[in-house]
Amino acid sequence: MLRASDLKLRFCTNETQATREKFVDKLQRLGFDISVPEVFSPPPAVVAVLKERSLRPHLLVYDGVLPEFDFVDKTNPNCVVIGDAAENFSYQNMNEAFRVLIGLEKPVLFSLGQGKYYKETDGLKLDVGVYMKALEYACDLKAEVIGKPSPVFFQSVLNDMGLQPYEALMIGDDLVNDVGGAQHCGMKGVQVRTGKYRLSDESHPTVTADGTVDNLAQAVDMILNQRGH
Amino acid sequence: MLRASDLKLRFCTNETQATREKFVDKLQRLGFDISVPEVFSPPPAVVAVLKERSLRPHLLVYDGVLPEFDFVDKTNPNCVVIGDAAENFSYQNMNEAFRVLIGLEKPVLFSLGQGKYYKETDGLKLDVGVYMKALEYACDLKAEVIGKPSPVFFQSVLNDMGLQPYEALMIGDDLVNDVGGAQHCGMKGVQVRTGKYRLSDESHPTVTADGTVDNLAQAVDMILNQRGH
Repeated sequence: MLRASDLKLRFCTNETQATREKFVDKLQRLGFDISVPEVFSPPPAVVAVLKERSLRPHLLVYDGVLPEFDFVDKTNPNCVVIGDAAENFSYQNMNEAFRVLIGLEKPVLFSLGQGKYYKETDGLKLDVGVYMKALEYACDLKAEVIGKPSPVFFQSVLNDMGLQPYEALMIGDDLVNDVGGAQHCGMKGVQVRTGKYRLSDESHPTVTADGTVDNLAQAVDMILNQRGH
Repeated sequence: MLRASDLKLRFCTNETQATREKFVDKLQRLGFDISVPEVFSPPPAVVAVLKERSLRPHLLVYDGVLPEFDFVDKTNPNCVVIGDAAENFSYQNMNEAFRVLIGLEKPVLFSLGQGKYYKETDGLKLDVGVYMKALEYACDLKAEVIGKPSPVFFQSVLNDMGLQPYEALMIGDDLVNDVGGAQHCGMKGVQVRTGKYRLSDESHPTVTADGTVDNLAQAVDMILNQRGH
């Protein structure tokens, strides 16, 4: 229905364990009409920042996302990029990332998200934000977070669509990263009661969604109805 | 010379990779006249706290220190204790500690020290404080630090000697943990220019030692001279 409308559509994810190609493959298999250029994720966003600032990263990321960094100069690193590295968050790999940072005159740490934990079929898993805090403390620095809820991330998507924030609406299940991040950037934010949604989100102390609906289909109905389609 | 004087002597360490027995063995081989009951380290201190508060720990510590917890009930844990676990700080072990904490109605985390990093022959290594910060962020809690510079730790040593803080003096190489910790507890603190000492310590923004000497021998001379021996 959104495709059939005249609305522009983009997909924003904090996925940092797979390339956009893999991510799109999976969604296509699930029946979504979606293509790689419509997907915005932290890895290509940080690659753009690295290029702009002539930075060469030491990577501590999940193996599956490494191809996103294929054409990035990684020799003689002058910054560190961490993603949701999961099993790669070993003591040895953390020490290596730490030694790169502490050896730099002006250490720069990029974190692909700042999540605390997420749920997998075999239980709760620590997310990248936890290891970001670890390295921040070790090196006495503040990481630059790339991805939702960073306003820079949302702005880059708006730029791609050629839209102003007030012309755009974000739909997501994560109140802080999706809804709050979008609102912080001047967009509207609607939360769906699926996935990460919790009942307590509807009385959150700092973020109030511009609307809350049961699922994506309802969100789409709401948008199209309000436009009079 | 201290032994020959009428002064009481205790040894305070944040060592959490070995039992006090191993630690004393090593110092004896190096020529120190030292015995186990004179050594105060975080593991027996936390064992006392656990007993007092009827807490059963999930342990994330170095294998070598496990014997200190031999007689502690570790079934159905209702708190987490982390030490300098080194290689044991794997992603899997961190997830396990996290799941114990997040599953508790009132999560309690004890951290055996809060150091950022230390130096070994093969390079800098991340210390327990870094992983403490990681779990604090993941679970939205504040850890209870056991060991230097905690005033409770210094007070327990003073209690053992039957002394008031103003009657005691601490000698150490770590300005914040040794000197600052002792001063915070009402003792005097003298820094030695060995080990962790850095030139910048002598102009530290918050901690000023009551004296700075080149090494332990000079510190002892100073103490005995001031007492007129």
